[in-house]
Amino acid sequence: MPNFTRNLSSKVGLPPGTLLHVGDTRADRAYISVANYDGIGFTETKDAFLGDLKKLADRQGVTWIQVQGLTAKAVEGIGQQFTIHPLVLEDILHTNQRPKVADYGDYLCVIVKSLTVKAETDDYEAEQVSLILGPNYVISFVENLFDDKDVLASVYERVRGGRGKICRLGADYLFYALLDSIVDHYFLVLELLGEKIELLENQIANQPRPELLQELHKLKHDMLFLRKAVWPVRELVSVLERGETSHIKESTVVYLRDIYDHVIQVIETVEIYRDMLSGMLDIYLSSVSNRMSEVMKMLTIISTIFIPLTFIAGVYGMNFTHMPELEWEYGYPMIVSIMLGISLLMVRYFRKKQWL
Amino acid sequence: MPNFTRNLSSKVGLPPGTLLHVGDTRADRAYISVANYDGIGFTETKDAFLGDLKKLADRQGVTWIQVQGLTAKAVEGIGQQFTIHPLVLEDILHTNQRPKVADYGDYLCVIVKSLTVKAETDDYEAEQVSLILGPNYVISFVENLFDDKDVLASVYERVRGGRGKICRLGADYLFYALLDSIVDHYFLVLELLGEKIELLENQIANQPRPELLQELHKLKHDMLFLRKAVWPVRELVSVLERGETSHIKESTVVYLRDIYDHVIQVIETVEIYRDMLSGMLDIYLSSVSNRMSEVMKMLTIISTIFIPLTFIAGVYGMNFTHMPELEWEYGYPMIVSIMLGISLLMVRYFRKKQWL
Amino acid sequence: MPNFTRNLSSKVGLPPGTLLHVGDTRADRAYISVANYDGIGFTETKDAFLGDLKKLADRQGVTWIQVQGLTAKAVEGIGQQFTIHPLVLEDILHTNQRPKVADYGDYLCVIVKSLTVKAETDDYEAEQVSLILGPNYVISFVENLFDDKDVLASVYERVRGGRGKICRLGADYLFYALLDSIVDHYFLVLELLGEKIELLENQIANQPRPELLQELHKLKHDMLFLRKAVWPVRELVSVLERGETSHIKESTVVYLRDIYDHVIQVIETVEIYRDMLSGMLDIYLSSVSNRMSEVMKMLTIISTIFIPLTFIAGVYGMNFTHMPELEWEYGYPMIVSIMLGISLLMVRYFRKKQWL
Amino acid sequence: MPNFTRNLSSKVGLPPGTLLHVGDTRADRAYISVANYDGIGFTETKDAFLGDLKKLADRQGVTWIQVQGLTAKAVEGIGQQFTIHPLVLEDILHTNQRPKVADYGDYLCVIVKSLTVKAETDDYEAEQVSLILGPNYVISFVENLFDDKDVLASVYERVRGGRGKICRLGADYLFYALLDSIVDHYFLVLELLGEKIELLENQIANQPRPELLQELHKLKHDMLFLRKAVWPVRELVSVLERGETSHIKESTVVYLRDIYDHVIQVIETVEIYRDMLSGMLDIYLSSVSNRMSEVMKMLTIISTIFIPLTFIAGVYGMNFTHMPELEWEYGYPMIVSIMLGISLLMVRYFRKKQWL
Amino acid sequence: MPNFTRNLSSKVGLPPGTLLHVGDTRADRAYISVANYDGIGFTETKDAFLGDLKKLADRQGVTWIQVQGLTAKAVEGIGQQFTIHPLVLEDILHTNQRPKVADYGDYLCVIVKSLTVKAETDDYEAEQVSLILGPNYVISFVENLFDDKDVLASVYERVRGGRGKICRLGADYLFYALLDSIVDHYFLVLELLGEKIELLENQIANQPRPELLQELHKLKHDMLFLRKAVWPVRELVSVLERGETSHIKESTVVYLRDIYDHVIQVIETVEIYRDMLSGMLDIYLSSVSNRMSEVMKMLTIISTIFIPLTFIAGVYGMNFTHMPELEWEYGYPMIVSIMLGISLLMVRYFRKKQWL
Repeated sequence: MPNFTRNLSSKVGLPPGTLLHVGDTRADRAYISVANYDGIGFTETKDAFLGDLKKLADRQGVTWIQVQGLTAKAVEGIGQQFTIHPLVLEDILHTNQRPKVADYGDYLCVIVKSLTVKAETDDYEAEQVSLILGPNYVISFVENLFDDKDVLASVYERVRGGRGKICRLGADYLFYALLDSIVDHYFLVLELLGEKIELLENQIANQPRPELLQELHKLKHDMLFLRKAVWPVRELVSVLERGETSHIKESTVVYLRDIYDHVIQVIETVEIYRDMLSGMLDIYLSSVSNRMSEVMKMLTIISTIFIPLTFIAGVYGMNFTHMPELEWEYGYPMIVSIMLGISLLMVRYFRKKQWL
Repeated sequence: MPNFTRNLSSKVGLPPGTLLHVGDTRADRAYISVANYDGIGFTETKDAFLGDLKKLADRQGVTWIQVQGLTAKAVEGIGQQFTIHPLVLEDILHTNQRPKVADYGDYLCVIVKSLTVKAETDDYEAEQVSLILGPNYVISFVENLFDDKDVLASVYERVRGGRGKICRLGADYLFYALLDSIVDHYFLVLELLGEKIELLENQIANQPRPELLQELHKLKHDMLFLRKAVWPVRELVSVLERGETSHIKESTVVYLRDIYDHVIQVIETVEIYRDMLSGMLDIYLSSVSNRMSEVMKMLTIISTIFIPLTFIAGVYGMNFTHMPELEWEYGYPMIVSIMLGISLLMVRYFRKKQWL
Repeated sequence: MPNFTRNLSSKVGLPPGTLLHVGDTRADRAYISVANYDGIGFTETKDAFLGDLKKLADRQGVTWIQVQGLTAKAVEGIGQQFTIHPLVLEDILHTNQRPKVADYGDYLCVIVKSLTVKAETDDYEAEQVSLILGPNYVISFVENLFDDKDVLASVYERVRGGRGKICRLGADYLFYALLDSIVDHYFLVLELLGEKIELLENQIANQPRPELLQELHKLKHDMLFLRKAVWPVRELVSVLERGETSHIKESTVVYLRDIYDHVIQVIETVEIYRDMLSGMLDIYLSSVSNRMSEVMKMLTIISTIFIPLTFIAGVYGMNFTHMPELEWEYGYPMIVSIMLGISLLMVRYFRKKQWL
Repeated sequence: MPNFTRNLSSKVGLPPGTLLHVGDTRADRAYISVANYDGIGFTETKDAFLGDLKKLADRQGVTWIQVQGLTAKAVEGIGQQFTIHPLVLEDILHTNQRPKVADYGDYLCVIVKSLTVKAETDDYEAEQVSLILGPNYVISFVENLFDDKDVLASVYERVRGGRGKICRLGADYLFYALLDSIVDHYFLVLELLGEKIELLENQIANQPRPELLQELHKLKHDMLFLRKAVWPVRELVSVLERGETSHIKESTVVYLRDIYDHVIQVIETVEIYRDMLSGMLDIYLSSVSNRMSEVMKMLTIISTIFIPLTFIAGVYGMNFTHMPELEWEYGYPMIVSIMLGISLLMVRYFRKKQWL
Repeated sequence: MPNFTRNLSSKVGLPPGTLLHVGDTRADRAYISVANYDGIGFTETKDAFLGDLKKLADRQGVTWIQVQGLTAKAVEGIGQQFTIHPLVLEDILHTNQRPKVADYGDYLCVIVKSLTVKAETDDYEAEQVSLILGPNYVISFVENLFDDKDVLASVYERVRGGRGKICRLGADYLFYALLDSIVDHYFLVLELLGEKIELLENQIANQPRPELLQELHKLKHDMLFLRKAVWPVRELVSVLERGETSHIKESTVVYLRDIYDHVIQVIETVEIYRDMLSGMLDIYLSSVSNRMSEVMKMLTIISTIFIPLTFIAGVYGMNFTHMPELEWEYGYPMIVSIMLGISLLMVRYFRKKQWL
């Protein structure tokens, strides 16, 4: 599970606009690949030279510049070529941003969190994805180098394969497709967490153990994280979808509305999960206290049955000279029978009272 | 009770607009029936041929195309004939949609959940109903084939019977009547759940058992589900009722306001049920802990009465050579009387303190 | 206390606008009385003939038609004479409506809940009151026949008595006066519940018993009901008071603002009561657990004092041949003294630790 | 602490505008004093005659009419002279009003609660203060006669002393100064309650007693009351400060903004106190349960140590003919040593487990 | 941790605009330093004479007047020279202000809380910082004299060093830079508290002690304080960022949007911390009750095993004349074996039931 408080303070004291990478994965260099397509052809420039990017983006058709691995040098270089505001560059490098959208006239900048399920660890990972949408280009920034399960990879396949309308439409549709892929991946994480919640729910109902409480707590934590990551995306997509920006064509807005619906669904599911987890705490506490009470009741019943019997034995262990029962021939078996009788009566009484 | 997390991720990675049925009921084919009426006559085409639909809808009067069972082929075919946006078709097939309304100019698309009580299982079922309202036609999509208790069936009876104003008015009134029927059925589900809550409330007050807590939890779950299903309908009806769309005539808007009131009532009832269920958890926990405490108190009182007596017996079981009481002729009955006296005093004291 | 889920589903499946009385009190006939006044004279027609109503209302001055007891026939007859929309008539008959206001151009329809304290049962009752305000008439519908303690009765007295400005002003002032009387009666119910809460608070603090928890729960229920009944009235009065409707004259709007203040006060009081009831649950639970702990502690202390003593008695009950103490002449009194000493020391220790 | 439900129903059934004093302090007569000032001179008319007020107010400069003690006669007389709406007069007399502002064109009416700390009882009191701001006069109504610690008294001192700009500016500034004084006094009450909360917090942490819970509950009650009294003032000041009324000059609006800030600060503090009180309940409950558990654990440990020893003593108290240990010369000291050893081992074990 | 209720009432009763320093640090004199720069040169006047300030500010370029230590005299002097409204001066001196912004036409006044981590005490401190932005000057007021770790110090270094664009841009950018530095320091405090929360979380899970609950409570308190300090800053920055004031140039607004994002991030983190702390209370309570239950169960099991054995010993301690077992040669070892067997069976049974 990702951390909330990571790197909060690492840039305090530096002037705004200082370009310095703040994040988890420190990359030595940025790997930049450029794809250009116009509905007819598709050209690809792998590991492009930083200085050529502007030239490559000026070609006809749509250009998608993928930056994998964040270095101050690469981001600054791209910023200079495409005249991007220093604050945007700072936000791209500082990978702890709250998801946001900003329209700078010439280009649109969107920063979101991509969430991916990591099958090996049965957990998920969060990564900051920054997208810059210009008139005919999209620049995407991700922190990890060469990650095949990248949320952007499936879009790339579609572009390269020349499949579907993505190849015929403009940069704004590419931009939409990337956002859509990111939001779609949220559902995978939700599914993973949903399964964990269901499993935990069963365990808690059947075998409440303190470890499960920790697990519950961890899942609540996850929900807080998801909420923090997804909630602002709703606002963000809503801004785009209301058509307040000139970078998105009318025909693409319909698709953004679709993303909006998905984000709402993610948020609602997170809220429902939160509600469920709260309910599970009640179940857990009640279940634990129930089991404990049953044990204590059982133990107390055992003691309660024997204490009167012990008393009777104590009475006939007294050393009075004149205790006629002691002399009786069948005194002993009689007393033992009385004891047996008392214990049977008590068990019956407890049964009747449903204590046993 | 329907599930929240069903099929969340099944379309991740596919390009938007891909037509693929995602839902619980897999149908081999779609059964399409077409009804046409104009206040005078009524014609019915059962199991209509997919290719004829447009032609059938072009006739005079109002045409209602009912699609039962969702297949990608049928939905795509209808989409082509009536030029419906691919995203709408995708939403119809993907039966996990959040209730929504969208105006595409030529037609209006509404997706809601219909909830029906299943008497056999004493439970309810949720199904996605998609409605498309065109100038003079309504297309309805449901997932289940040949379901006689379909929420739409009663409206169909009214149309076929030629009863009421539904036959004299336009497609928008038919559209309203379908929505109205769906919302009305929510009340049946509310009534079912209300009865369950009342039953549970009585059981919890009288005989708190751990199983009831599970039941309570399940009902809370149901409320979350209902909320998720009904809440967006409010927004949706509000959009329609504000007359923002040209597909609904002025005279029909009054009726939509009526639906709006019903939806609000459903939502309020759900919220009240939620509040009641929360209160019941308190009652349950207090009731369980109360019963347990009573048992423990009773058991402890039994022990407490016998322990001092056992002590006395122990004293006269000591083997001191010089214990004058042991020699007394009436020592034994005296001690037994003292024991009896002490126990009576203790019982009286406990009674006075209201512990017993 | 009124019920929430009553009759929710009784009209499911019927076409909208079907006139059918749905409510608690089934009346065989409706009793209609008509009052007409114009600041100078006052005429009264008791048990008026249904067909004459329109004629009676067309006279000069203000006409107030009171309908007591709801039958489909009467409501339909009135609806035809005054050309009232079928949905309004349906709402009047279906007495489970959420409070609402609707302006139909020719007339204004307001439906609210009237709450009255029933002294006999020390409880309150809810009833639906529907008011229709036309240009120079008001029609009021209540469900109960011949109820002298009717919330509308005091207004009727004022009209008949020719007292105050109500007689000089128009139908809209009469309409206001009726609403004002209904809202004023809410305070009586609040006072009843406030007294119950205060009583319960004292009982819970002094003598926590499980029955009180049920009582608490019932009062919480009442609050939910009140909230459901009053909350929409706020919205409703706010619509009227903003002067958005032409049926209310400027001079009357000032008075509606006064009702608005009262409704807000009712709502605030309900919210405060809810908060108080929540706090009382904490007090109750803490109080119960406190009492129980005190009892258990007391019992455990008794056992704890005797167990060591019993042990000592046990020691000198052992049958070892060589136990010098047993032979001592004052062995027995010495041991008894030691036992006494130990028990005194323990009591003192428990006192010092404030356990006793 | 003031009461919530006081006098809620006393006017139910009376026609609106009926002048009848509803409040705690019943005054036989109203004491009216009039102050007039214009930056140069200051004249004071103590115990003015009711009929002269209008004439006194028509003089040059600003006139402040103070009414102490509410009688229907006085309020009605003032209402007639200054042509004040009957509903306003009713609100002034009915001292259970929610704080509100209303602009009646010729004059502005503000009703708020003044809160004053009563040092004698270490508690605070609430009183309704009504202010009417006309073109060149302010009328203030308070319920109590001759109260020297009146929140308005300090303003009066400033006016009389001719100090500061209050004497040079108009009636609206006087009106502001009165409101400001009332709001400033809220801080005194907050401080009193803040001290009580802090004291309670310490007591709860150190010595949790059931009485403290009652105290906690009472403070929560106070917060509900304060919230009810102060929350609407925010809205009220906000209306005035937005300059929507012509009675407040532009130059005074800046000052009202200052009051607004103060009211917000009061509200925030109340909310923080509420949060703190909630937290204290947790501390209290945990603290009580902790102490009780410690006691029970200690007692149980004592029993647990002695029960095995008693068993051993019991074994050697058996009367078997053949029990070789009984014949041993050092059997008795050996067994006593074993008992000692067992008890020491148990104490050590409990220590190690940190139970002791 | 700072206090909430400090000095709330110290100015009650004084006329508004009275200049009187209300705060924690009482300074004898104010230390004023003036910096002037215009992108080319930089001049500094340390410990400037109060009367010269206006003259110094009238020079070309941007002037930053730093006031350290608040005295009524200094603030009044500055107020006269720069014609600042008395209410602003009062707010500056009264260091308990809620963060706010006010545009007085000639200048803009912003009051915020600066939060700084104090490494020595492992705690943080709050201080009020007031900023006045005029056409070409910024005046900053802080309460503490000569504090090197001042949040404003790093900005001063940048200005003096002639580094970055701060030196080339206007007073509004300086104003932004100061706000930015203050908000950035919030992250340091968040990090400190985040670490404390994480530490506490571990301690609570492993070794729940009552002291930790106090610690938890204290952190909750901190969150309330932070919320109170930061929440209004969001509103404040939002007002500035919407460009509603003429004092901020268009080019600087982009930077304020950056601050806005940071403030939102601070608020979200505070809310998440609050949620985490709530969850930790549950963990704590459950953990404590769990440990206690385990202890009690263990102790009760020990008693429960010995009580039946003691009973058996008691039986054979009875003094009946005819008890055949007592005469048996191997009676004693047989009974001891039986006792052993019973205790083993019980242990096994408890193990099987998972009570042990």
